[in-house]
Amino acid sequence: MDELDLRRSLAKKSDSKIVLYVIDGVGGLPGAAGLTELQAAKTPNMDALAVRSACGLHDPVAPGITPGSGPGHLALFGYEPTEHMIGRGALAAAGIGFPMQAGDVAMRINYCSLDDAGNVTDRRAGRIPTEKNEELTPLLRKIKIDGVEIFVETVREYRSAVVFRPDGGPELSGNLTDSDSQQTGVPPLAVEALDDESAHAASVANEFIAKAVAALSGQAPANGILLRGASGYPTLPTFQDLYGLSPAAVASYPMYRGVARFAGMEALGIDEIKTFDDELAVLGKRWSDYDYFFVHYKYTDSRGEDGDFDAKVAEIEKADEGLAAILRLEPDVICVTGDHSTPSVCKAHSWHPVPVMLSGDLVRPDGVTEFTELACAGGALGRCRGKDLMPQMLATAGKLEKFGA
Amino acid sequence: MDELDLRRSLAKKSDSKIVLYVIDGVGGLPGAAGLTELQAAKTPNMDALAVRSACGLHDPVAPGITPGSGPGHLALFGYEPTEHMIGRGALAAAGIGFPMQAGDVAMRINYCSLDDAGNVTDRRAGRIPTEKNEELTPLLRKIKIDGVEIFVETVREYRSAVVFRPDGGPELSGNLTDSDSQQTGVPPLAVEALDDESAHAASVANEFIAKAVAALSGQAPANGILLRGASGYPTLPTFQDLYGLSPAAVASYPMYRGVARFAGMEALGIDEIKTFDDELAVLGKRWSDYDYFFVHYKYTDSRGEDGDFDAKVAEIEKADEGLAAILRLEPDVICVTGDHSTPSVCKAHSWHPVPVMLSGDLVRPDGVTEFTELACAGGALGRCRGKDLMPQMLATAGKLEKFGA
Repeated sequence: MDELDLRRSLAKKSDSKIVLYVIDGVGGLPGAAGLTELQAAKTPNMDALAVRSACGLHDPVAPGITPGSGPGHLALFGYEPTEHMIGRGALAAAGIGFPMQAGDVAMRINYCSLDDAGNVTDRRAGRIPTEKNEELTPLLRKIKIDGVEIFVETVREYRSAVVFRPDGGPELSGNLTDSDSQQTGVPPLAVEALDDESAHAASVANEFIAKAVAALSGQAPANGILLRGASGYPTLPTFQDLYGLSPAAVASYPMYRGVARFAGMEALGIDEIKTFDDELAVLGKRWSDYDYFFVHYKYTDSRGEDGDFDAKVAEIEKADEGLAAILRLEPDVICVTGDHSTPSVCKAHSWHPVPVMLSGDLVRPDGVTEFTELACAGGALGRCRGKDLMPQMLATAGKLEKFGA
Repeated sequence: MDELDLRRSLAKKSDSKIVLYVIDGVGGLPGAAGLTELQAAKTPNMDALAVRSACGLHDPVAPGITPGSGPGHLALFGYEPTEHMIGRGALAAAGIGFPMQAGDVAMRINYCSLDDAGNVTDRRAGRIPTEKNEELTPLLRKIKIDGVEIFVETVREYRSAVVFRPDGGPELSGNLTDSDSQQTGVPPLAVEALDDESAHAASVANEFIAKAVAALSGQAPANGILLRGASGYPTLPTFQDLYGLSPAAVASYPMYRGVARFAGMEALGIDEIKTFDDELAVLGKRWSDYDYFFVHYKYTDSRGEDGDFDAKVAEIEKADEGLAAILRLEPDVICVTGDHSTPSVCKAHSWHPVPVMLSGDLVRPDGVTEFTELACAGGALGRCRGKDLMPQMLATAGKLEKFGA
């Protein structure tokens, strides 16, 4: 039996509330002083929680694999991230808060430069600024294709996203090749269908490209587009279907809200949340309405990506204060971790396993007294896969029946 | 290659003897004094063995999953318990010591109350006592169905078991629905076949139900039956087939003997064993006849289920004395663990990982000096799956060849 089917067959209702607190990119590596960011930070709330938690290290995808934000979060949500993949187009749509629907096909747009012969001379259109991109979006929005509703959204710089939605025309399917050949001096490729169901979407994509080139005439260096990463709406089994949960997401960045929505979560406070304090306010306000909350702290990852060790330490300390605020709501079960490591010395996501702690009345404490990579390595959760955390949260919350007699 | 095929391809003979000592439900949670049952118990023999063992924590099925006794033991016997499942009917037959054969179909019987219209008014027949059940068994044993031999056995209270065995008639297959609708005020459902091979068994089951109702006329509140959990003989690859072992089980409770028999073990001393001391006597007497022994200590689980912390501590101490007796037989390899945790505070099986220690001449010691949940969390076996223990026992006993050149 597949592990999701197993959990689904065992799911039961309880009144307990679960919080998954994701401190993005929290895992690190030693800086100049020989301490990791977590070791250097003062985190009294995390350390106090570690004392009454089971601790460990998790590999979001697998040992040695550096996760993107999509797979990292899917793992924390309990999915096998190499099986349940969110296409790049769908992730781009999620990232700008576009409310994608089942039946849509999303693709990433790169503005590019074309010469008179139609050959690509720059695959990124001279890296036009976001402001220029925003001027071009209305031009692409004017494109009409029979039987298809078209949504075009600026992402940033030379990148945008397009979503094709059937509107009286045939169904669309997103198993398509890219028009980007990854080369210059040659014309863009035609988008091709990789299965019969996607033939119509391929012709829509190619018609869109042709009409975009006409609409962008005179807009050099951004006088063409490349389409990439086609994907339909990700078909994840939802938290409702799997576990009967009533789940909500509290996140300031659209992409995390988008990934959470794919899992069935309601994204709360979309118009209210600008800062992490806004997240906490929304969490408190909606506390009685749900039994599972995904709370996302973004800036630890951002400062790690910047390579700014001290700034990441400061963000960890702010995330620690945020933990205190969450604990005041008295969740029955709380899991604190990251979706991947982002060591400042790497200035990027990394493959290093991520510290995690799980707390709740029936958790068996393990003698770990601080929330650091080193201390968690000796904890009772051991070194596990990211996807194995969700069933342990559910069990601790009394939401899983016994398997077999 | 499937993991069982891998092991089978590497199995080799050796003179070593392996003991798997299962202290049922041994894992616990802290009680009032902040110690778990294992921490509170005086276990000099376990602790001395821990010093010369590799220790760890295992998840019998998967992290967060609470195992029934069947899946818990299958995992310790080296099987993936979500793949090799023992149906509830087969487990019920095992539980009363019924020697099920390949080709049999076993089902659980619930006596129920029917009104004059044939609707179920009580799904448990007023919870009739076991003595009443025993009076009804001869009535059901008189039922005759062409081409089928029928065995009916009392389990307890309103529960019994029936086994259908082909006897000159067509083959039987146990992929059947239950006749229990889980509701009252409606008649029982007809048993239906879920595949073509099971069509004959469905008609046998329905004929049995009809004849049972006739036989039970006047026996209200137990004037009807519900049939549930149909299953054929579990088709596990046996220890003989996989490893060339000569395996035996020493257990006082029939269900554990039954699960062991499904794996190919000979159940020793069925008529002699009443207590754990009887188990030890049989083990000593038959020591030279086998090279693998599964020894089962039941009462730690029983007292955990009772929620009696102190009584579970006392049983752990008796199990510790039992360990000393087993060690006097000088097994080459011994693995001590449980099939799941049964914390007294839960009064039930739980999902918490189970302490385990593996000892033998070639085991690499890991600095763990006591057999507790906390100490084992720091051991060299790490946090592993239950099914991963069997190959490590075999390897330590010199019973697995190198894989590849």
